[in-house]
Amino acid sequence: MSRPPLRNLRLGLVQSAPLADPSENVKRAEESIRQAAAQGAQLICLPELFRTPYFPQEETAEHFEFAEPIPGPTTERLSPLARELEVVLIASLFERRAAGIYHNTTVVLDTDGSTAGIYRKMHIPDDPLFFEKFYFTPGDLGFDAIETAVGRIGVLICWDQWFPEAARLVALDGAEIIFYPTAIGWLDGETESENAAQREAWITAQRAHAISNGVFVAAVNRTGREGKLSFFGSSFVADPQGRMIAQAAMDREELLLVDCNPARIEQERRAWPFLRDRRIDAYGDLTRRYRRG
Amino acid sequence: MSRPPLRNLRLGLVQSAPLADPSENVKRAEESIRQAAAQGAQLICLPELFRTPYFPQEETAEHFEFAEPIPGPTTERLSPLARELEVVLIASLFERRAAGIYHNTTVVLDTDGSTAGIYRKMHIPDDPLFFEKFYFTPGDLGFDAIETAVGRIGVLICWDQWFPEAARLVALDGAEIIFYPTAIGWLDGETESENAAQREAWITAQRAHAISNGVFVAAVNRTGREGKLSFFGSSFVADPQGRMIAQAAMDREELLLVDCNPARIEQERRAWPFLRDRRIDAYGDLTRRYRRG
Repeated sequence: MSRPPLRNLRLGLVQSAPLADPSENVKRAEESIRQAAAQGAQLICLPELFRTPYFPQEETAEHFEFAEPIPGPTTERLSPLARELEVVLIASLFERRAAGIYHNTTVVLDTDGSTAGIYRKMHIPDDPLFFEKFYFTPGDLGFDAIETAVGRIGVLICWDQWFPEAARLVALDGAEIIFYPTAIGWLDGETESENAAQREAWITAQRAHAISNGVFVAAVNRTGREGKLSFFGSSFVADPQGRMIAQAAMDREELLLVDCNPARIEQERRAWPFLRDRRIDAYGDLTRRYRRG
Repeated sequence: MSRPPLRNLRLGLVQSAPLADPSENVKRAEESIRQAAAQGAQLICLPELFRTPYFPQEETAEHFEFAEPIPGPTTERLSPLARELEVVLIASLFERRAAGIYHNTTVVLDTDGSTAGIYRKMHIPDDPLFFEKFYFTPGDLGFDAIETAVGRIGVLICWDQWFPEAARLVALDGAEIIFYPTAIGWLDGETESENAAQREAWITAQRAHAISNGVFVAAVNRTGREGKLSFFGSSFVADPQGRMIAQAAMDREELLLVDCNPARIEQERRAWPFLRDRRIDAYGDLTRRYRRG
């Protein structure tokens, strides 16, 4: 039986604890990217909104000042860096598209410095200390995979993690690895058991995307204390069988370098051929809000 | 803040190792059902195809003899039992619908002995020693929840486990608990690490259905050796946050009694309101086989 060729990819997950000053955060991100590239990383992903503090923990119109156009100041810094290092950069930014239209957007910069694609966060959360609906217009670009020089990837963002529909759609669009830049953390005053269950649910849901789609999943979270939130790190990569192949600590900055062999995708999808058996004739109601009244 | 009322439900998961003789299997199932009911179980679920050996590990036309109509001999045995014990019975059978049209069907018998509903397995596997496509016509009833006297449930079957679409659709149809009668096991000659990864993937995928839909999930597997297969038991119930609240052993028959409080569903869906944020405007391509050519 012929096997797909070996084509190893090294991912760099930059788990960071952003500071108050955006220019400092960009500078530190650049250092981490250089460090990851020096160690052979080909696809390097930063956490959600790496450039700024996690401002959506309060609703304050002044925080719209954190936004920038895309392309804009940050991509102008990162694009030459991607070209210089010949790496793919996955950078989550607060996008100002127009007055009153702001998005939570991830830009993918290719190895030649060009923009391979952008993704605008489609599912926007809003729960205590994660008041994102105030800031972010829901994305209008859908769930398309993005072609890069080193592979076809899906980029989804944080809250998208909880929606199997999103993972499925980028996988059906040919993504081999799904990246999730993330900002998830604990609120004060919860029990340890509740905190553990939340973290475990976060891991479980994403490992399941790897399993049901036969893809790699790379989640890149913030860490550290900001305001009233404790981001819990735990960035990880799961293989197409859902095996946890690498995971960062909860409570400190870390650069996680992980080797993935995309041939595992074909291997896994031959062993458990789920995509063969999807009942596309019977999924129509997935576009309904609720099926009862 | 008002809370939904407490309405505790006790589930009975009958993890069994069926024998060669169907009448013996039905007799043993009846005994387990009586035992579960005596301990207060209100919803009792048997494993996939509990009445027969796991015949799809070979393709032999004679095995169609195992099939029966629904209603038919087995429901005529179980229906009075459901009425007598005032329990809901979830029984997976090999249905003969017509010459040449056979299904892998689960019947739900209500507390008064009536048929609350049936579900015909929609996703049919076919991989080494699980040659189900030879026997089972794919279901044509869709993914509807079933109303019973003690609650609204979803019934999916085994291979359906790997498809988040199926879980989502029964949840959107109001299911509070999703039952998965199952026959999953290991082939000889795999490594321990591979076997462990398969079992863990099976658990992870289903816990994720609980999480992303905010429902209880109850998986009821066969156990024991049959022919060339070793069924791995591990039947379990996960709560709406994906917490594993009870799990059976891998290697022996077991009756698992598990209390579920459906109020946990409302509680969990308020804390993490995923259903609020589904992008139903952007899920249309879920009815496509593949999005690239």
